[in-house]
Amino acid sequence: MLEHGGRLGRAAREFSMPREAWLDLSTGISPHAWPLPPVPASAWHRLPEDDDGLLDAARDYYGTDHVLPVAGSQAAIGALPRLRPPSRVAVVDPAYAEHAHAWRQAGHEVVALPLEELLAHASTFDVLVLVRPNNPTGVCLDRHRLLELHADARRPWLLVDEAFIDTQPEQSLVSHVREGLIVLRSVGKFFGLAGARAGFVAAWPALLEALAEALGPWTLAGPTRHVVAQALADRAWQASARTWLRDASARLAALLTRHDLRPSGGCEFFQYCERPDAEALYRALATRGILVRHFSAPQALRFGLPADDTAFARLDRALTELRA
Amino acid sequence: MLEHGGRLGRAAREFSMPREAWLDLSTGISPHAWPLPPVPASAWHRLPEDDDGLLDAARDYYGTDHVLPVAGSQAAIGALPRLRPPSRVAVVDPAYAEHAHAWRQAGHEVVALPLEELLAHASTFDVLVLVRPNNPTGVCLDRHRLLELHADARRPWLLVDEAFIDTQPEQSLVSHVREGLIVLRSVGKFFGLAGARAGFVAAWPALLEALAEALGPWTLAGPTRHVVAQALADRAWQASARTWLRDASARLAALLTRHDLRPSGGCEFFQYCERPDAEALYRALATRGILVRHFSAPQALRFGLPADDTAFARLDRALTELRA
Repeated sequence: MLEHGGRLGRAAREFSMPREAWLDLSTGISPHAWPLPPVPASAWHRLPEDDDGLLDAARDYYGTDHVLPVAGSQAAIGALPRLRPPSRVAVVDPAYAEHAHAWRQAGHEVVALPLEELLAHASTFDVLVLVRPNNPTGVCLDRHRLLELHADARRPWLLVDEAFIDTQPEQSLVSHVREGLIVLRSVGKFFGLAGARAGFVAAWPALLEALAEALGPWTLAGPTRHVVAQALADRAWQASARTWLRDASARLAALLTRHDLRPSGGCEFFQYCERPDAEALYRALATRGILVRHFSAPQALRFGLPADDTAFARLDRALTELRA
Repeated sequence: MLEHGGRLGRAAREFSMPREAWLDLSTGISPHAWPLPPVPASAWHRLPEDDDGLLDAARDYYGTDHVLPVAGSQAAIGALPRLRPPSRVAVVDPAYAEHAHAWRQAGHEVVALPLEELLAHASTFDVLVLVRPNNPTGVCLDRHRLLELHADARRPWLLVDEAFIDTQPEQSLVSHVREGLIVLRSVGKFFGLAGARAGFVAAWPALLEALAEALGPWTLAGPTRHVVAQALADRAWQASARTWLRDASARLAALLTRHDLRPSGGCEFFQYCERPDAEALYRALATRGILVRHFSAPQALRFGLPADDTAFARLDRALTELRA
């Protein structure tokens, strides 16, 4: 298994500090979560059914009919590589590490390349894997450039993970899917529902059919289907969440900059600071009960958004101490 | 995708009767469901963590340390065939159809055999797949015979699906796992939590590690982990549920027998009636708003348990009309 953020239990043991004492900024999940509705008991008791309204809500939210619910984009990341014969795969680097891992595990030849190099050699690969905005760097490749890339290439698969794009839906490729173009969307980050394990894949119909067959029946929990269908339909909350995320992300970037930690990248869900002393900073913050995500290649920290004024003040205080 | 019970939405359309008008006996899920506790919002918001108590509860309930939570036994059924090189696989027939389907889909040579024939030729296969109690026939192969079979064979994989065994836990092979023996357990049927999508795999450590790696991180939803951990620990409810299921199943068998539908098999979760007019009976019951599961090879019906006196009376009345 690869390492991920959100492992508060492990940090609590490693730094001998109880879970509830931590400020967890180690993920890119929005702390401004969609308010949960009551879940009917039948959603727990019965087998989930496909015609429960989730698909309609998703088609409306994503603006395309060609969309498949999956148990988190992770489920699609794991299954898609099994739908191709052995291929030459380029994965942008750095990026969410499960992509390269899944393609390797399925027996493909995987090359990890910096974004510009990947784009320059695109035509020599069968599959291109990109993340936009990228996690952890925050780089968001232009939509038109990607569509041109897909039109130019000799019909490779272009797999675009847009788990963090919900604050700028007009930038998404989700409604542009065509043969060879696969877009992953996540519910966990924007709606703050990472525990629900829900995501969506947009692609051409034959690919969606093959993926559904590979994943088998009932991949999403019934309560998840109920909650997500309503979250996707709540346009008023979505508008307010976009504003909240933009403001909180700008505030976090300003705070880090004040402490001589100017982000080298980021998006509305996190800020990214590449710096050689990342590991020492990670440990210094952890001893103060603040968990961030540490990356080692390259050395960097990713800061998730503090949930409120108290959390911002705590981070501010800790960084003041560190620089003292 | 294969056909399954529980497709009430489709039946409602086919027979032009609203969902809420139906008595759904088309699954083997207990209608006597575990009473749901409140789910903390954090279970929805945060990424699930492995050290949240679910594994401890499962080890206690199943009586073995070698157990892995999965998103329904279906998730394991789909993933296990990918952990072996092309093999000769014998699957008991009739049985839950996803088994043979998953092994075929993964490129194995699959032979479907009646139970006794499968046992007689066990040593000629690399993998044996059995279901006990079997779904839909209810046949429950003796535990000692299975353990002997596993000891005798030239180390094949023996995969035993025990989704319906929770009423007789002393019969389970779950605490007997050793190299080559894999046991699947389900939470959905006994606890009436089919929507939760939770099951467990018991097997030797290396297999569990490979399976966990193949399934990837966060396969169970956070709310599911919270609910299931508590259900597995609720011994008082489990004892009462065993009594309820035994009584309801016996009552259903008696009712069917009174209507000249003596079950040819069954278990505490359903009754199974093999008969040439199964399809006509299925449709006659459906036009009366009673949904049962129809099988065509061989022609048979499976009746799930009515939830209460009203449901029993409704089935009784419908069968009286049919025989009139």
